Amino acid sequence: MKKTIILALFLFNGFALFAQTKEEQTIKEIYKSSLTNSKCYTWLDDLSNKIGSRLSGSAGAEKAVIYTKAEMEKLGFDRVFLQEVMVPKWVRGEKETAYILDKKNRISVPICALGGSIATAKSGLTAEVVEVKSFEELTALGKDKIKDKIVFYNRPMENEQIESFHAYSGAVDQRYAGAQKAAELGAVGTIVRSMNLRLDDFPHTGAQSYGDLPKSQYIPTAAISTNGAELLSKSLKNNPKLTFYFKQSCQQFDDVLSYNVVGELKGSENPDNIMVVGGHLDSWDLADGSHDDGAGVVQSMEVVNIFKNIGYKPKNTIRVVLFMNEENGLRGGNKYEELAQANNENHIFALESDSGGFSPRGFSLECNEANFQKISSFSKLFEPYLIHSFVEGHSGSDIGPLTSKNIVKAGLKPDSQRYFDYHHAANDKFDAVDKRELELGAATMASLMYLIDQNGILK
Amino acid sequence: MKKTIILALFLFNGFALFAQTKEEQTIKEIYKSSLTNSKCYTWLDDLSNKIGSRLSGSAGAEKAVIYTKAEMEKLGFDRVFLQEVMVPKWVRGEKETAYILDKKNRISVPICALGGSIATAKSGLTAEVVEVKSFEELTALGKDKIKDKIVFYNRPMENEQIESFHAYSGAVDQRYAGAQKAAELGAVGTIVRSMNLRLDDFPHTGAQSYGDLPKSQYIPTAAISTNGAELLSKSLKNNPKLTFYFKQSCQQFDDVLSYNVVGELKGSENPDNIMVVGGHLDSWDLADGSHDDGAGVVQSMEVVNIFKNIGYKPKNTIRVVLFMNEENGLRGGNKYEELAQANNENHIFALESDSGGFSPRGFSLECNEANFQKISSFSKLFEPYLIHSFVEGHSGSDIGPLTSKNIVKAGLKPDSQRYFDYHHAANDKFDAVDKRELELGAATMASLMYLIDQNGILK
Repeated sequence: MKKTIILALFLFNGFALFAQTKEEQTIKEIYKSSLTNSKCYTWLDDLSNKIGSRLSGSAGAEKAVIYTKAEMEKLGFDRVFLQEVMVPKWVRGEKETAYILDKKNRISVPICALGGSIATAKSGLTAEVVEVKSFEELTALGKDKIKDKIVFYNRPMENEQIESFHAYSGAVDQRYAGAQKAAELGAVGTIVRSMNLRLDDFPHTGAQSYGDLPKSQYIPTAAISTNGAELLSKSLKNNPKLTFYFKQSCQQFDDVLSYNVVGELKGSENPDNIMVVGGHLDSWDLADGSHDDGAGVVQSMEVVNIFKNIGYKPKNTIRVVLFMNEENGLRGGNKYEELAQANNENHIFALESDSGGFSPRGFSLECNEANFQKISSFSKLFEPYLIHSFVEGHSGSDIGPLTSKNIVKAGLKPDSQRYFDYHHAANDKFDAVDKRELELGAATMASLMYLIDQNGILK
Repeated sequence: MKKTIILALFLFNGFALFAQTKEEQTIKEIYKSSLTNSKCYTWLDDLSNKIGSRLSGSAGAEKAVIYTKAEMEKLGFDRVFLQEVMVPKWVRGEKETAYILDKKNRISVPICALGGSIATAKSGLTAEVVEVKSFEELTALGKDKIKDKIVFYNRPMENEQIESFHAYSGAVDQRYAGAQKAAELGAVGTIVRSMNLRLDDFPHTGAQSYGDLPKSQYIPTAAISTNGAELLSKSLKNNPKLTFYFKQSCQQFDDVLSYNVVGELKGSENPDNIMVVGGHLDSWDLADGSHDDGAGVVQSMEVVNIFKNIGYKPKNTIRVVLFMNEENGLRGGNKYEELAQANNENHIFALESDSGGFSPRGFSLECNEANFQKISSFSKLFEPYLIHSFVEGHSGSDIGPLTSKNIVKAGLKPDSQRYFDYHHAANDKFDAVDKRELELGAATMASLMYLIDQNGILK
């Protein structure tokens, strides 16, 4: 008995050793392929510089659908198809203007309308300003102090947070729900400090929601650059009676037809088990959205390009999904899940890249404890590539709706320090993405897809 | 006896637990101080934008000595002093020009003289070109094929290397010794592909040496941008008889007096044990040298600013050392060690930051195995700050000469992917450094300095 156990252990270890060596070898090929023979940077160049911004419902978004479908068709998928999805169409209109009107001085400050905001009157809006740092402070001031005022939300993202996404989470309520809360107390507009850790002159747009307010109570809302916010705050300390003027002409249209773009590679052994890798094809309108989320789109496509280049045939079905409308609706993510349910599909794994094209550091995993332990045990295989971080946490917005039983969801975790320098702002452009960092991210994603394809997930 | 052991273990563990909690707390304060209350980014702004490039022997280098001495004097050191050191003075002169002369076409390409190179004749130098990828290839071609030619070294840095410093190590022999090797075979000049992983239009300078060649045999040598190298190589394939013209007017002067800048904080318990933290104050002349090594200079100064801000009094003596002349001579590092020996000083630890101001990832350690194990055991304390990499390897050039018995040497290891986009080129400027990444690096350095100060090193 003892001998048998020892022999079994030997065989098991021997097998594990062999298996690991094979895995090590394949991962090495994956990284080499990505760093020497990738297409992702060229695709990003096209998406960013030939197509440009891709807000849902815009001409850019439609061009991106056509472009990525055509590029995926060259990659040797079994099929490339579109999923119809109705998306919101919001248009910024003319460039916004804003001034601090302080005694006889008129000081121009950079603002941009938040996504989904209504316009001001054509002549603009002028009112006194109440600065607050939180909804608690707003509520404590009450209707008397807020009525007919512009509410200025100025709680900065916390610099002491090590991960910039934590700093974002701690401040973004002001952008998302600030207009609704202020309107409920009679404010005529809101100005929100941009979600940006550094001091600069870029206003950062982003989604906001009026919640269940009746349309008649909607008020215009805009983001101000961090330097602008500092100036406004300082000016208010000197002169609480100053006024603020802003003008924006944005407009919400009826929903329009758009598409998720899907490339499918049938699994050789378990074709009914689906593994998704994706990012979102839409971007905000102020720039190319090279980090958010052009990077995730081209990295997801690169995963299949790598598999093709190294001759890897997946056991499970791989789907590259380029989701439409993550930024202001999540309609693409919801539609994908709706169709998956209607077709009784079984998704075992989904991986999203939507945190920028920076140097990859690891993965954020949503799954049960057993799968978390199993996937974390792959970390040794990633150490030569400086990938160390396997944590439990949010995976990705577009794959959030997926509900297959036992599904494991993962998000690529790149270095986050620079992300909010660019996020939703006019500087999120091609030259902010480094080719090697983008390629390392794609290789890191391909490596995890490969390991899950080989090893499966636990029930 | 058993009870005693258990009690001892309990006390030991209890103490360890308390000690670790205290250490965790202090490291948290260190990072918070750096991310919310640092001076390093402002210092870097001054060094880069008010002073500019700081090649040894230049006016910029002298201004940097005066500036950093004055800033350190404001920081509450026990003493701030200069160490005299004679440094080489090499001056680039007029901007270089270069052309590919291909049949009737004259195509301009970006080059820059390598540090220490001689000038061409005033009218420039024109010759046929022999492209090689290695010294082996050069030697195999021999005198017949090389005489009177320009040797063009065109072996790229290997993209498949995960750490860009490994790719650099694998290619930099061409830059450092290429002129000497080619001159020995009768070449009249050399052109070296820039040490840059990406394709762009920046030529990258750097040190080169004629070794023991007699001065009469020196030949002019320059770096060409990677795009220029690709073009030249392609043009040579079409027309091996094309010629290359370049003109440079650089000049080597007699050595001049310069300085290391040293700030010293006396240890409260072991003043004779010295811990160095430093970077190099000189830079190349094509840009501000914000990454190389403005970042290391201001991060080293920040370590003491952090200690002051959190009220930490070191047990051992801390020296912030800003070394002069790392780039083309290492005279500052050698002088520091010479004086340390003359004064019978005992250095227990030295930490250098000279790999760019990017997101910190860990440390590269030069020490015995026992100390490596001990320092690696601190890694848990760094995980909340996304610092995972403790490896054995090169620490820093300036601290290389230090020879105290048992000394532990460490180099900060930042993310290296973008470093060679900027290294020794005209784009190594202030805006290439991210404030948070710089501050996180300073905090990571301060944390290790604190841990070594608390725990000592093993003999």
